[in-house]
Formats: sequence, C-alpha cells, structure tokens
Amino acid sequence: MIRELILKNRSYRRFDPSVKIDDSILRRWIELARFSASARNIQPLKYVLCTSEDIAGKIFPCLGWAGYLPDWDGPEEGERPVAYIVILHDRNISDARFCDDGIAVQSILLGAVEEGFGGCIIGSVDKNKLAEILNLKTGLEILWVLALGKPAEKVVLERCEKNRIEYWRDEQGVHHVPKRSLDELILKSM
Amino acid sequence: MIRELILKNRSYRRFDPSVKIDDSILRRWIELARFSASARNIQPLKYVLCTSEDIAGKIFPCLGWAGYLPDWDGPEEGERPVAYIVILHDRNISDARFCDDGIAVQSILLGAVEEGFGGCIIGSVDKNKLAEILNLKTGLEILWVLALGKPAEKVVLERCEKNRIEYWRDEQGVHHVPKRSLDELILKSM
Repeated sequence: MIRELILKNRSYRRFDPSVKIDDSILRRWIELARFSASARNIQPLKYVLCTSEDIAGKIFPCLGWAGYLPDWDGPEEGERPVAYIVILHDRNISDARFCDDGIAVQSILLGAVEEGFGGCIIGSVDKNKLAEILNLKTGLEILWVLALGKPAEKVVLERCEKNRIEYWRDEQGVHHVPKRSLDELILKSM
Repeated sequence: MIRELILKNRSYRRFDPSVKIDDSILRRWIELARFSASARNIQPLKYVLCTSEDIAGKIFPCLGWAGYLPDWDGPEEGERPVAYIVILHDRNISDARFCDDGIAVQSILLGAVEEGFGGCIIGSVDKNKLAEILNLKTGLEILWVLALGKPAEKVVLERCEKNRIEYWRDEQGVHHVPKRSLDELILKSM
C-alpha cells in the first residue's frame, strides 16, 4: 500500500479552498518528519506552520509556480493552497543537513496524501521577502515551501520519451508528468 | 498507517544474513523512487543494485558505520547487509538535484520496511574505491549507499535532552536514538 500512497502523492498545484487545514493537522505531519532519519541524528530542520488566510495571502506572492508552464502564473484565487509549511535549515545547530530535507518532505507529503490532502514542494521562493514576512532570526535558512490543500486537479504519469522531461497540461486541464523508465534509472545489477 | 511505517523505518545496521534480497525486490523499491517527486522533474538519480555475495563483500570495506559508537566497527560477519543500493547523481543529465535524493531514499526504505526489511543510509563511503569497484563512468557521483537486509536489532526512540543527539547502544544491544521534541522543531504557527 505504500506504492498506492506514493502514486497518489503527485505535485498538486490547484486546490479546493473550501477544505481547510488547521494547525493540529500540520503538527501531525511534522511529527512524521520528526520520526524520520536524520544524518548523524543532528536534526537541524525547523518548521513554520502557516494556516491563517492573512499569512497565506502574504506567502503566495513569494512563490514561483510550474516552470514548464510559461503561460500559467500559478493557481488563481479560488484554487490556491490553504496552508503552507516553510522548511528551514537551522544553521545555528549545524551547517550540515545531508539529505534530511528530502526525507522530511516526503514523510510530510505522504502523511498529507493519506488524509486526502496533497501539495507541492516549491523551491522557487523569494527567500529574502519570505524571511521578512516570517520574521526569521539569523541562521535560519529557508529551504522549501510546501503548498498544501485538498487537490483539485488530476495529475497523471507518462512515459518519458527521448529525454523530454517537461510536464504539460492538456486542454482538459489534466497535468501530465513524464517519468524515466525503470531500466533507465537502474544502471546495473551486480 | 504511514505513521506506523515511518516509526518502523529505523536506521538498522545489523541484519539476519539468512534472509536474502534479490534483484526483483530491489527493482520494486526503486520503482517507488521512480514514482516520487523530482525537482523540475529532471530525474537525475541513478541506481546500482548489488545483491551478490561477491559484490557485497567488496562494498562492505568501503563503508563507515555509526559514528557515535566509537568502539563498534560495524556489523560482524553473520550480521552484515545482504544487499546494497548505491544511489548516484548522474551529472551528465544535470548538476542540480535539489532534495531528490532524500525523497528517493525515503521512498525506497519505506518500501523495504513494508516488506519486513530495513536498512541504513550510509554517507561515510570511500567513494573513489567504490566507484572503481562499480566501474562507474565519468559524471556519475556516488551520493549514498543503502545497506539492506532483514533487521536483527532493536532500535528505540528517546526524548532528546539538552541537545544530546548522539545515539547509544545499551548492554542488551538495543540502539537508542534521541529525537528532538515537536515543540523544538516547530518554530512558530502563523
């Protein structure tokens, strides 16, 4: 069933704004990250939970959306994320984080998907502006913003042909994501 | 149930060598990574699957184990991993990988744990030596080695007190891992 959950865990960028996510739900998902592996067990990641409409409205303009869809500036009002988790690297603890952030992100999103939610990992972030909005102390580096909500779009996987990895959206608004084949990913078996 | 799976997904370093892992099992777990998110959908990760005793015997001396246990040089014969996945960044595709590796590692390990296996993400690797053993082409950078098998040790989570994040092993051989509290990880809610 982890396979089903991972398949359901697509990068969703349009949401049903009538379904809210409160703080206690986000805390439950952060706990999944807390229980996950951390290199040298340093645990240098921190989280800011954003659920109010006010803060969501301030975060949204800091984000870049779906680089391969040049004609789309991101979700319109009425389909925007209802919550955000800002993932930080606390460099006051350690400058090293190895692959802790990817592990944490995957745990959080799998928790979200299991409860009928979903999201998108956003790396295109105006970090200076967002740090100001969040009033972050020195040493806290913004890594990723998770945009969260109840998905209101369909995302399907496609075969990746001739190295064309750019996703696209069809006339029905379905989002198509080409994935490299297993044989391309596995270099060799020994 | 993702919570149960994540809680069961500890860093295991000692295994039951009588339970083997074959290539088809590893391929199933790599497929979970294949279905997982990739920044800009670039999918720059590659995998080498290692299941033969011969190759496992060659990989083992390239690895460093459990930095906080100075008196322990890693698993003895009879408790060593039965398989390895070497995770590579294919820089011929792109120099960027963002947090793809952590996401992939978590997907693979959750797949392993669901089937009663488990493993450890090893970053302390003699990469030059291992690249030679695997006969890797230029541009393939070794990121992580996943040591895999059926766990033969008990790992328990502890409360992290006073920033002491070093894990320890007790007289019964149980491995204890202190985790920071949720309140320490969550900087603020807005």
